[in-house]
Amino acid sequence: MKHPGCWKMLTVAMCVALLGCLQAQELRGHVSVILLGATGDLARKYLWRGLFQLYLDEAGKDYSFSFHGAALTSTKQGQAFIAKVLESLSCPEDVAPDRCSELKGQFQRLSAYRHLATREDYMALSKDIEAQVQRGGLREAGRIFYFSVPPFAYADIARNINSSCRPGPGAWLRVVLEKPFGHDHLSAQQLATELGGFFREEEMYRVDHYLGKQAVAQILPFRDQNRKALDGLWSRHHVERVEIIMKETVDAEGRTSFYEEYGVIRDVLQNHLTEVLTLVAMELPHNISSSESVLQHKLRAFRALRGLQKGSAVLGQYQAYSEQVRREQQKPDSFHSLTPTFAGVLVHMDNLRWEGVPFILMSGKALDERVGYARILFRNQAYCVQNDEHWVADQSRCLPRQIVFYIGHGELGSPAVLVSRNLFRPSLPPESWKELGARPGLRLFGRPLSDFYAYSPVREQDAYSVLISHIFHGRKDSFVTTENLLASWGFWTPLLDGLAHEVPRLYPGGAENGHLLDFEFGGARLCFSQQQPEQLVPGPGPAPMPSGFQVLKARYRESPLISAWPEELIAKLADDIEATAVRAVRRFGAFHLALSGGSSPVPLFQQLATRHYGFPWAHTHLWLVDERCVPLWDPESNFQHLQTHLLQHIRVPYYNIHPMPVHLRQRLCAEEDQGAQTYASEISALVANSSFDLVLLGMGADGHTASLFPQSPSGLDGEQLVVLTESPSRPFQRMSLSLPLINRARKVAVLVMGRVKREITVLVSRVGHEPKKWPISGVLPTSGQLVWYMDYEAFLG
Amino acid sequence: MKHPGCWKMLTVAMCVALLGCLQAQELRGHVSVILLGATGDLARKYLWRGLFQLYLDEAGKDYSFSFHGAALTSTKQGQAFIAKVLESLSCPEDVAPDRCSELKGQFQRLSAYRHLATREDYMALSKDIEAQVQRGGLREAGRIFYFSVPPFAYADIARNINSSCRPGPGAWLRVVLEKPFGHDHLSAQQLATELGGFFREEEMYRVDHYLGKQAVAQILPFRDQNRKALDGLWSRHHVERVEIIMKETVDAEGRTSFYEEYGVIRDVLQNHLTEVLTLVAMELPHNISSSESVLQHKLRAFRALRGLQKGSAVLGQYQAYSEQVRREQQKPDSFHSLTPTFAGVLVHMDNLRWEGVPFILMSGKALDERVGYARILFRNQAYCVQNDEHWVADQSRCLPRQIVFYIGHGELGSPAVLVSRNLFRPSLPPESWKELGARPGLRLFGRPLSDFYAYSPVREQDAYSVLISHIFHGRKDSFVTTENLLASWGFWTPLLDGLAHEVPRLYPGGAENGHLLDFEFGGARLCFSQQQPEQLVPGPGPAPMPSGFQVLKARYRESPLISAWPEELIAKLADDIEATAVRAVRRFGAFHLALSGGSSPVPLFQQLATRHYGFPWAHTHLWLVDERCVPLWDPESNFQHLQTHLLQHIRVPYYNIHPMPVHLRQRLCAEEDQGAQTYASEISALVANSSFDLVLLGMGADGHTASLFPQSPSGLDGEQLVVLTESPSRPFQRMSLSLPLINRARKVAVLVMGRVKREITVLVSRVGHEPKKWPISGVLPTSGQLVWYMDYEAFLG
Repeated sequence: MKHPGCWKMLTVAMCVALLGCLQAQELRGHVSVILLGATGDLARKYLWRGLFQLYLDEAGKDYSFSFHGAALTSTKQGQAFIAKVLESLSCPEDVAPDRCSELKGQFQRLSAYRHLATREDYMALSKDIEAQVQRGGLREAGRIFYFSVPPFAYADIARNINSSCRPGPGAWLRVVLEKPFGHDHLSAQQLATELGGFFREEEMYRVDHYLGKQAVAQILPFRDQNRKALDGLWSRHHVERVEIIMKETVDAEGRTSFYEEYGVIRDVLQNHLTEVLTLVAMELPHNISSSESVLQHKLRAFRALRGLQKGSAVLGQYQAYSEQVRREQQKPDSFHSLTPTFAGVLVHMDNLRWEGVPFILMSGKALDERVGYARILFRNQAYCVQNDEHWVADQSRCLPRQIVFYIGHGELGSPAVLVSRNLFRPSLPPESWKELGARPGLRLFGRPLSDFYAYSPVREQDAYSVLISHIFHGRKDSFVTTENLLASWGFWTPLLDGLAHEVPRLYPGGAENGHLLDFEFGGARLCFSQQQPEQLVPGPGPAPMPSGFQVLKARYRESPLISAWPEELIAKLADDIEATAVRAVRRFGAFHLALSGGSSPVPLFQQLATRHYGFPWAHTHLWLVDERCVPLWDPESNFQHLQTHLLQHIRVPYYNIHPMPVHLRQRLCAEEDQGAQTYASEISALVANSSFDLVLLGMGADGHTASLFPQSPSGLDGEQLVVLTESPSRPFQRMSLSLPLINRARKVAVLVMGRVKREITVLVSRVGHEPKKWPISGVLPTSGQLVWYMDYEAFLG
Repeated sequence: MKHPGCWKMLTVAMCVALLGCLQAQELRGHVSVILLGATGDLARKYLWRGLFQLYLDEAGKDYSFSFHGAALTSTKQGQAFIAKVLESLSCPEDVAPDRCSELKGQFQRLSAYRHLATREDYMALSKDIEAQVQRGGLREAGRIFYFSVPPFAYADIARNINSSCRPGPGAWLRVVLEKPFGHDHLSAQQLATELGGFFREEEMYRVDHYLGKQAVAQILPFRDQNRKALDGLWSRHHVERVEIIMKETVDAEGRTSFYEEYGVIRDVLQNHLTEVLTLVAMELPHNISSSESVLQHKLRAFRALRGLQKGSAVLGQYQAYSEQVRREQQKPDSFHSLTPTFAGVLVHMDNLRWEGVPFILMSGKALDERVGYARILFRNQAYCVQNDEHWVADQSRCLPRQIVFYIGHGELGSPAVLVSRNLFRPSLPPESWKELGARPGLRLFGRPLSDFYAYSPVREQDAYSVLISHIFHGRKDSFVTTENLLASWGFWTPLLDGLAHEVPRLYPGGAENGHLLDFEFGGARLCFSQQQPEQLVPGPGPAPMPSGFQVLKARYRESPLISAWPEELIAKLADDIEATAVRAVRRFGAFHLALSGGSSPVPLFQQLATRHYGFPWAHTHLWLVDERCVPLWDPESNFQHLQTHLLQHIRVPYYNIHPMPVHLRQRLCAEEDQGAQTYASEISALVANSSFDLVLLGMGADGHTASLFPQSPSGLDGEQLVVLTESPSRPFQRMSLSLPLINRARKVAVLVMGRVKREITVLVSRVGHEPKKWPISGVLPTSGQLVWYMDYEAFLG
């Protein structure tokens, strides 16, 4: 046992890996930290401080250090700058002044500025490090390059490091990258590919400084240490909502050139709030000290995110913003920015744990207070028998129950973890978190502080100090991997694209915002709670919509026609279907409905799924009008559409659902499997007289309906009820109800929507009974009723 | 136009039907009211007052009246009693004193007491009425018999009325019945059948006086008049919970002989609270003034109620109750009553509007306050951006949003309708409801009164006055029809049966109850929030349960055995299944699970449905081990079990569900339909090597497993994968996986639970490989693993 210090290392868990430990038996390790952009703002404010803290924590342990401040600044200027920054450093309170100045002196001696621009500069740096290591009788342990430079400089620096400044074998390289990591999925991917040409994944440490904030860094340990109490609570059965919030009072003045490019979603939501979201929502790994395991679980959480749509967000912009942009960027008076400075986004997770739980992400500038938090609010699933005057905070299950990771600022003024007393007394590591003292009069989240078990850090640390320590210790789970980064951009980019031309709601800023920015959700859609008020300044808006919404009744091909704007048309059709269903169930005990595929019926399905509580689904049989010859689970399958948009939301008994048997004996629509005949017999057996109560059809731009295409050799006449047909477009093979079967229905509704249908609508209005040429013209129920539902765009053009 | 008064009638909408109006042209109608039990408590307190009110409202309109107070009391005593009651009557405030004494005089002259016991008495009464009608030159319009007598007297009176006191043709008969209407479903049905022998359904008016309470009577009109605002709110998408509450401060002292028979559920929940529930939950008829339509919709609401189970309720009994019973009923000291004086019940509706919304019904005696209300609390679906200090009551969507039908008493002290100002300004009929004045300092449901639009009746009326008027006007929807009564008892009786031997939690009474009675729900189960404290007095309890809960591992038939108490056993099995599933999906991309029918797996299904968020359902294929030859939708079908307890709660793609094809071509398990072969091919096609990842079996008391019974000619060996078999019990025909197929599985789990399995467990532990005799003994996976899961009762007896 030559090196008893090694054992000490193990006991204090400072030994990164046993291997390094064993090597340390040979020579003391040396770590070089190269801070690129050493004279920039971030470096001045946080990074030098973080490096000093690292030195304080690790000096005298098992590594020696050297710190290289590098930049493009001239050596002289750089040296002066660094000297000033180093002089301004201070020690934590618990270090005695004498000891502090001693340590500070050591740190200053280990730190130097160097001009770093060309490949040769990097080669020289590498040589210097090697020489220093050799001089000191050390072994090189690793090099940390901290990129505190604008993204455009990344590639050159990365190339130089890779070609000319890698440490020798046995020593590690860690490059630390600061956001922005791209602007959208594509640019992030390009950047990642570029960096991937220089560095291995495990060498890259992408910083999201929120992951270094103490309350955020505590989320997983908290979940881990309170597993038993949280196990029964941390799911859709108990969580009412999750709020992940970052409010700012400042605005973007002075930074509009950056801000115009990014906006609040890229600036805050895509990174900080999304990271917090995954920490709250991910399945908890068995061993949270395994970075790999944490990162894998996080990635799975990303995969469970339900895709965002335009309606998932509300956007705002503080009123003065456009003027600031005009001023700072010399834009003309007519310029109005569309960049959001406020966003609320509703996120859902498609997994069993979180299904249906709203995750609300919100951030904005020029709001009434500066505060950040992740708040988990639990459902009230209790009834408290006594009058609420008598409720006691730690006993009543009817008072709000919440867990808050309070990131900072706000009325509390420090990071904290809050747990309602009527939940459970949490366990936090006593060496780093202490109970908060009483703060009479302070209310948080609607309750007095005394209603919470409240903890704050024993020693407040800034995020960069925490992260620099994690880089040194190789804790990759505090950083953003390429996979996670791309997953996050993959999630946000469609929303950003969808919102690119959206006009944000203007808000005055500060307390004056009143309730203007409050938003609410119904299903997956967000909207502002208050109607759009008079715009404060005229903004570029969408074209005005006609305001007269009404349903028009007319005739088309000698049958009733109902026409309206899309929303009203779908509502009317859904009402009519329900009325038909109720009548059928009352008369016959069942309702047989045959539905078409394609995209037109999707809003109808949604309408039926969410608005028609009285629909007799338990007595409804669902049949398909046509199907593509693909497996039922194929995204192209009509059935799959039906499943996603309707079946998933309603309760139709399994045996009332009748997908077309296009997939038998592992083959698709093989004649010899007699799928069409099987479907026909099923219809004959269950549907009285093979007469559906309602058949819903569409009309193609070529005049096809169901999967009966012009010139089809089958299905347009004859005895067959169900036929195999060929489509002119992929997938070619189809199964379809035949015209004779369709025409046996009691009622046929044809839904035609969109301007693309205008031409065929006009054409078909003029042709006679020519099913060979225009299959739709053959739809003429023998004794039933035909009704056309066309939106104004299809009917009026 | 001889009778211009007729036209006046029409305009004031007092003409019940045009027919009556036309007849009135001939002779003025006369209505006789016979109050049976005219000297009883109810009559004295409410009914005479109600009759006087009726007279005040209707006198001088289109009918003349006579009021007959009838009882078994002697004529002299009865007359004296009546005279006293009539003398004590007072007019509403808006009637001038002179006019009042005039009207009172008239009413007294029209009212008389008569002894009514025998059939002859009734015949005499009828004759007297006819004579009076003739004398007055009137036409008999109808007779109202108000039964204010104990139920045992019903039959005799009903017989006498029917045989001897019906009005002649053209006049109606209305009999008014007071609860109790039976004690459970059976007794209610008997009573209804008995009464049905004497009266037609439309002649019977069963009183639930809650339907006459002004706030309750306002529920449907409120929903009707605020349709537009409520349309988007009145559903599971917006309602968080509904509370229907009746709290009393009094206890049952002096009434224990009645109360011992009934208890709080029969006394309050089955009738009053259930009526309120249906008014809140029913689909709103298009025309709420149609009694028939209202009653039909109400009946449908009853049908949508999800069945209650023992776990749906919590029961309490105030501490002094047993002692009061002992005293009042001369019971021995050892007597402890099980009658609940407090109940909380969780009700769910199985329809699309209300699915998942908890309806909490609660009532109790000896509570901290007297109050009754129906409260609809809406979900908070908003995020309010400003700090909550700045929220404004009528603008913030984050403050509680609720609608309360305040039945009476409580801190408000009068009936009221309350609507949160951040919801909408409701419309109420101004002639009968007025806005409440300010009541500074008054808080209701957690908010100051000023947060509500609050309305109270212009004139407070007691329930009986309201109902007597409704009887006169034939408004049957304010009464309980036979169908509705039986539907209600059908709903409550299973719960009452299930709870018959349950020990209620004792509570001290009043404010001292603290949080003792608070209860909460998880899924469909209710439980008290606080653990059972030390009992205040020793009550009769269930046998003490062993306290050591652990999982025991042993061997059984040379395979691993896992044994535990049922709950732990199910949890362990579910965990093991999930682990197997995760492994299978990771290795093969899919998990093929074959499940048995029967009741044993039901708790397992529930466990999997509600506790296993990480289960890879999207990649799981569900197969059946065996099936009964009944349609899939038959309650006996194993598949139906699976659907109810598992499929409904999870998201398995439609095409991953593989019910056994027992029902082909409208026939059940016909050999020629080759269902077994079809299932076998499906298995061969989808399951690699026809080797299920996991097969879950049970074991019958006769040693059968799957649907392979002793001496089965097929399925115990041979080549067939799926076979048709015969069961010794109904339904006889079965389809089953064969032993050879089962034994190809990678893993087989046999679940054996309950004391009834003890004998076979012992027996099978001793037999060798004798599948002909004991099919279960043939379960021996060729290369897979067999594990037995037995609860202690099955294994240890």
